[in-house]
Amino acid sequence: MQVYLDNNATTMTDPLVVEAMMPYFSELYGNPNSLHKFGTSSHPAISTAIDQVYKALNASDADDIVFTSCATESNNWVLKSIYLDHIVNGEKNHIITTEVEHPSILATCRWLEEECDVKVTYLPVNEQGVVEAHTVKSFVTDKTALVTIMWASNETGAIFPIAEIGEVCKEKGVLFHSDAVQAVGKIPVDLQATHIDFISFSAHKFHGPKGVGGLFIRNSQALSPFFHGGEHMGGRRSGTLNVPFIVGIGKAMELATTDMDAKMTSISKKRDRLEDAILKLSDTFVVGDRVNRTPNTILISIRGVEGESMLWDLNNEQIGASTGSACASEDLEANTVMLAIGADNELAHTGIRLSLSRFTTDAEIDYTISHFEKAVKRLRTISSSYAVQQPTKGGEVQECELH
Amino acid sequence: MQVYLDNNATTMTDPLVVEAMMPYFSELYGNPNSLHKFGTSSHPAISTAIDQVYKALNASDADDIVFTSCATESNNWVLKSIYLDHIVNGEKNHIITTEVEHPSILATCRWLEEECDVKVTYLPVNEQGVVEAHTVKSFVTDKTALVTIMWASNETGAIFPIAEIGEVCKEKGVLFHSDAVQAVGKIPVDLQATHIDFISFSAHKFHGPKGVGGLFIRNSQALSPFFHGGEHMGGRRSGTLNVPFIVGIGKAMELATTDMDAKMTSISKKRDRLEDAILKLSDTFVVGDRVNRTPNTILISIRGVEGESMLWDLNNEQIGASTGSACASEDLEANTVMLAIGADNELAHTGIRLSLSRFTTDAEIDYTISHFEKAVKRLRTISSSYAVQQPTKGGEVQECELH
Repeated sequence: MQVYLDNNATTMTDPLVVEAMMPYFSELYGNPNSLHKFGTSSHPAISTAIDQVYKALNASDADDIVFTSCATESNNWVLKSIYLDHIVNGEKNHIITTEVEHPSILATCRWLEEECDVKVTYLPVNEQGVVEAHTVKSFVTDKTALVTIMWASNETGAIFPIAEIGEVCKEKGVLFHSDAVQAVGKIPVDLQATHIDFISFSAHKFHGPKGVGGLFIRNSQALSPFFHGGEHMGGRRSGTLNVPFIVGIGKAMELATTDMDAKMTSISKKRDRLEDAILKLSDTFVVGDRVNRTPNTILISIRGVEGESMLWDLNNEQIGASTGSACASEDLEANTVMLAIGADNELAHTGIRLSLSRFTTDAEIDYTISHFEKAVKRLRTISSSYAVQQPTKGGEVQECELH
Repeated sequence: MQVYLDNNATTMTDPLVVEAMMPYFSELYGNPNSLHKFGTSSHPAISTAIDQVYKALNASDADDIVFTSCATESNNWVLKSIYLDHIVNGEKNHIITTEVEHPSILATCRWLEEECDVKVTYLPVNEQGVVEAHTVKSFVTDKTALVTIMWASNETGAIFPIAEIGEVCKEKGVLFHSDAVQAVGKIPVDLQATHIDFISFSAHKFHGPKGVGGLFIRNSQALSPFFHGGEHMGGRRSGTLNVPFIVGIGKAMELATTDMDAKMTSISKKRDRLEDAILKLSDTFVVGDRVNRTPNTILISIRGVEGESMLWDLNNEQIGASTGSACASEDLEANTVMLAIGADNELAHTGIRLSLSRFTTDAEIDYTISHFEKAVKRLRTISSSYAVQQPTKGGEVQECELH
């Protein structure tokens, strides 16, 4: 059996999405900006995809949703264009974000600090792994151009209080962007019910293809383009439209958000069953809030077991897991989100993330529980730190505080 | 019969390319940056794609080729990063380009002029539709940061003297970029034989998918990233790798460049047969040099016939043609390349572009010749300008000079 539990890194493209995309490679392949029938023949499919995305996110007709190549592009676009539109002229000089954002936000913020003299506030998260609205409020000044805070954590699944932060931004008159990559397609995202100016998303996080994403722009407000060129997407984002993947993101969005409550319940039941089984092992701790999080995500700490070692043992049993973001997977450093939540350095090396999808089966959960237990036992047997630690506590289970 | 003759706008994705990509949607779908087997299972295919691209372009192992979402991204990246790396610090202040570049170069240059005080020289083209190396040389100053000149024209197919311009840039110590979108996959591009620092290309111009392209970077030289974020592609371009399309661009590149001479000869024979047939009609003129151009392209002017009207007549017969770049197709303005070459405004409205591919058949050429002739006759019958013009010349065919 093979079990893929790294759906926060990327997902399988749903075969129904592939099927929807197929005609647009070698049959209806015209450039939609061309005037002839070959070009216009893909217009109905593009319209359908746009409708699917607007409906899924409950965007209004007055809003713009622009297709990009990924959320990394969308995030770079918003941050750099807010700089060009509101900071370079001296009007504003400040951006507020969090310590736990995706690298495409953090690296862009660091670049804006270092190269462009932007002041950036990196808010720490609380014990639940989120930033509260009143914390954001206390850092907003009249020079703040943008608040950019993730909708849900890729690591813990923690859902941030986006509606409340949106109200703060509205009250303070500050633009608000959210990297919603881990929220869109996983939990309800209602853009008419939320005061937010921009959100970024990526299809491959909800069973669409890698290489297409989007940027939502409230009320089609002004935002300098990131790609200059031809008049594609009303001049908002130049480059020949990737028709198959636009069809794909629409279809994937529709599939993910249809009967979403039922899908969420089904996934969280399996997730909880897996998590409960792991928590029966001694010295294991869920990182962050168990309630207020995306239904598919577990970030768990296993005292005495290096996350990397656990990953390799699971990998040998054909189980794909992660120690954290795939975008930072090449370094074997401590989990930065766990550090941010307050774990000590040793504990922050023991995190393992399991992220399910709607394709995860009960049989796969059973298989994972069995091999997870075996791996923990094996690794603790050879763990010098775990073996040493236990006697010093006189046989008692050591309590661990993450904060 | 349907005849697609707008391959300079975009091409059909080769079914062999689609076949090569298919396993990477729903089977080998892991994130290649993940450490588990689901992630690493796509590494061999990515390596193959990289090898295919290096071989097709004769790049050296010391060079970098970075996959992007399209040539528009690559062009924006080079121009904006050259600005950040060499202009914003006051070291240089000048970019040289041509009047006939793709909108992704021209719009970016205009933005750099207007927003960033960069001085941009837009060189006019000569009667053959190209810029000569000595012209470039005469405009280079010690403040020139970059020369950016297309490899081949999307409109006329004219091939620019890239090797000679490269020598000028080498001698002057100026960075040289070429938007090679219309050259890669159509004519030999030998990067070890050419002194050039950067080239941009897009897969969908040579029967790969829309939504993937590349940037060649000589000797892996420094160039600020355009997308900040995770450490993808060695930190050069962040964002989860679009594995299917990377596989696709490699396969498409291999297919386009294998037996390229034979492919070029086969296409140009069909092109020439079509062009010769059109030139037998009175008052028709090929725009630019008939010899030194990509083998698939015709830009022809038909006195007295609006390009747009011609396009619609052909469209009614299921023939897809163009009046010029699809990226500027929404305005009905005069063909800017024809204006640049020296056509008067009236003539510049009479251009029609036909661009073939290796999938174009002889039967399609026959069909096109037949319907092209009919359309020209019909439209001239109702053309007030053409009917009026002929008597004033005493029945003689009026000679047209494009320059």
